[in-house]
Amino acid sequence: MIEPGGYIRDIFKKPLGAQVEAHGWVKTRRDSKGIHFIQLNDGSTFQDLQVVIEDGAVPETALAAATTGASLRVSGELIPSPGAGQAVELKARDLHIFGPADPATYPLQKKGHTMEFLREIAHLRVRSNTFGAVYRVRNELSVAIHKFFQERGFLYVHTPIITTSDAEGAGAMFRVTTLDLMNLPRPVDNTADFFGRPACLAVSGQLEVEIFSLAFTNVYSFGPTFRAENSNTPRHLAEFWMIEPEMAFCDLDGNRKVAEEFLKYIIAQVLDHCQADLEFFNKRIDNTVLATLEHVASSSFEHVPYAEAVRLLEKSGRNWEFPVKWGIDLQSEHERYLTEEVFKKPVVVTDYPAEIKAFYMRLNEDGKTVRAMDVLAPRIGEIIGGSQREERHDVLAEKIRAKGLSEEDYKWYLDLRKYGSAPHSGFGLGLERMMMYLTGMKNIRDVIPFPRTPGSAEF
Amino acid sequence: MIEPGGYIRDIFKKPLGAQVEAHGWVKTRRDSKGIHFIQLNDGSTFQDLQVVIEDGAVPETALAAATTGASLRVSGELIPSPGAGQAVELKARDLHIFGPADPATYPLQKKGHTMEFLREIAHLRVRSNTFGAVYRVRNELSVAIHKFFQERGFLYVHTPIITTSDAEGAGAMFRVTTLDLMNLPRPVDNTADFFGRPACLAVSGQLEVEIFSLAFTNVYSFGPTFRAENSNTPRHLAEFWMIEPEMAFCDLDGNRKVAEEFLKYIIAQVLDHCQADLEFFNKRIDNTVLATLEHVASSSFEHVPYAEAVRLLEKSGRNWEFPVKWGIDLQSEHERYLTEEVFKKPVVVTDYPAEIKAFYMRLNEDGKTVRAMDVLAPRIGEIIGGSQREERHDVLAEKIRAKGLSEEDYKWYLDLRKYGSAPHSGFGLGLERMMMYLTGMKNIRDVIPFPRTPGSAEF
Repeated sequence: MIEPGGYIRDIFKKPLGAQVEAHGWVKTRRDSKGIHFIQLNDGSTFQDLQVVIEDGAVPETALAAATTGASLRVSGELIPSPGAGQAVELKARDLHIFGPADPATYPLQKKGHTMEFLREIAHLRVRSNTFGAVYRVRNELSVAIHKFFQERGFLYVHTPIITTSDAEGAGAMFRVTTLDLMNLPRPVDNTADFFGRPACLAVSGQLEVEIFSLAFTNVYSFGPTFRAENSNTPRHLAEFWMIEPEMAFCDLDGNRKVAEEFLKYIIAQVLDHCQADLEFFNKRIDNTVLATLEHVASSSFEHVPYAEAVRLLEKSGRNWEFPVKWGIDLQSEHERYLTEEVFKKPVVVTDYPAEIKAFYMRLNEDGKTVRAMDVLAPRIGEIIGGSQREERHDVLAEKIRAKGLSEEDYKWYLDLRKYGSAPHSGFGLGLERMMMYLTGMKNIRDVIPFPRTPGSAEF
Repeated sequence: MIEPGGYIRDIFKKPLGAQVEAHGWVKTRRDSKGIHFIQLNDGSTFQDLQVVIEDGAVPETALAAATTGASLRVSGELIPSPGAGQAVELKARDLHIFGPADPATYPLQKKGHTMEFLREIAHLRVRSNTFGAVYRVRNELSVAIHKFFQERGFLYVHTPIITTSDAEGAGAMFRVTTLDLMNLPRPVDNTADFFGRPACLAVSGQLEVEIFSLAFTNVYSFGPTFRAENSNTPRHLAEFWMIEPEMAFCDLDGNRKVAEEFLKYIIAQVLDHCQADLEFFNKRIDNTVLATLEHVASSSFEHVPYAEAVRLLEKSGRNWEFPVKWGIDLQSEHERYLTEEVFKKPVVVTDYPAEIKAFYMRLNEDGKTVRAMDVLAPRIGEIIGGSQREERHDVLAEKIRAKGLSEEDYKWYLDLRKYGSAPHSGFGLGLERMMMYLTGMKNIRDVIPFPRTPGSAEF
């Protein structure tokens, strides 16, 4: 197997003259008179290893089978490359084919494919330049997220996927069942279902991370969440990954501070570790990617209360598609105006009207706004949403009743305010939304390995 | 908020005389004449911070409310502790109560509670000694897993949770649906369901990580998996977390090597970072925990083919509950005998009969065994299961047909053997099973934040 030091990215670091062995898949092949060039990739880095094979240097049958898509092992010497695009190349002494790929049927040929076509062959698109870069960035982003929180003493918590509590009533949920749909008795007996009552896929782990923050102080979750909305857009997935930190003894100011540090940190880490991949996105997908990321990573975020944001939008003189007045939820056009044109850097809007936010957000003294915050970033608008939570038992109970929710269903959530309650705050970041921001990819289906959308759950 | 340096575990590292501020929850409180002792915990470490309060040093009302379960902030000076159990204590100068906890109703009182009782208050059990230790170990274990693979250049992959492919037919699955069960038309129209056909919760991400390993060489998944088996035992969960590495250009020997290094590494990391927690488990839960872990971490694992294992069991002279002969699946009694009595260290059994293993395992030359491996460990038996995968297209297609599975359903899986196939191998580790091994906890429901079992999915 390939051990550290054996990947192609490590081979690039070896000295000229080194005897090396590389494994990988043929990206492209080109034949000249008496000499053959193979671009070999093992997924460890964007850059292919150029393999040069002189006639007679390796077995004929192996050479013949080394076509696009084939997997092989090649050994030889690292020599300076006269060609453009790489400093070194591998002069082959031996070649072994593990698995050929019939050029007549292999779907991933040299020329560019549409994203739609590649989506249909998600088991092979992983070998393309674009998706190689996407999944390396996704790996680095995930690692950076854990690193940020672990360095700060946050405890990683696995919140439940299957849940019997509707949480915040946040949108449509998938039912999880072992009832036999083909032979369902009428009326349906939910007590006969696996969990003895209806169960769903969680839309958030927030309420559960609150439990942990009120015992471990600073915690975070990082796991899949689900929405059963019938939204067939480039921005919606039925299954996506969320990161939800929660901090006890922390108010909205602390929350803002963590969110800002967090965003800058993960961007800086990806900029640091995925340079070649990001350069590819900048060149081929969206030429504003690098500049935006570098700008965000070095900005001091602006803070503006909602009421002030509304004033700025009202006096903008713009003709908004969604008219602005106090009480509306900000739309993408408003968010982007604030971050891209007014402040020209990320903006944290706080203290939204209670009416448009979830019941668990802390009520301000004015009785009409809550300690919510949205982080808006240039090119995308809202990227993080969070709040200080309502930690006062009676205020929370009243809000639960006012929303028509059942106090009994939220008994445990209220218990947290009854026993050792404390100010606490947190936020949520959608991994795929962050991936789109990092890569410039335009369709959210192309930044997750296996997208789940209405009518589609392949693999 | 608490930043690095402000946790109780950091306060313990400060010099005597330091002025410090601590936040946390009162574990216990004891009053003497003119002096009050509070054991304060913020979840950052097993050890409580002892707070000493002299009469008159802090406001009376705050002191009165500082009972078990209350959350507070206390500031003062770090002084040497005359008492047993701690080197330093905090002499309080000021005390602020965030949230009291009525001693008349707070369920988590000083004296020991049964695990069953604590399971019913999963939102409060997190504050107990036992569960504090459990979730710190779970965090450290999760971090160690990522660290091991990242250091070796493995790419982290998020495999799908919702799936339309039955994978290996590995046990009962949960159906995921948006059909209205209360008004289901007959016959059921599966094309009207969210994904246009029946979808389930994945039992494994293995087939999907194979896709990634055949593009990125070494990869791993770490995510939730699901079984809808109606098993109400201390070893079964309906929802649990799995780690599934997959390595291209890697045969069963390489697989064995990675599994051995992996197990030793994660055990060593937890031994290193969770010393106080493990000592607690060793003292209060299972007094063989530490010795077993240290033994495994320093052992060279034994390798024995299945046929040889069966011979050893046959000639043991034991009266097995499950009689032994070539062809049976090894039971816990057999596994523990091999690892605990014959070899007295972890054992990797390989080359099991094809009949009792999944279709995707590579067929040996003998035509009747496959390149499977199970890692058996003292005190628990099987802890890891894996195999070299069948990489030969025609052999795999034949096995799929022989198992009565549909070649069409596995078209993409067969494609991987058609285009650039390569020897590849991998294994799976159940996170909760490893947690039981590390902690000695006897019921799997007590090593996951929110257990899902037949009839139960609280929170």
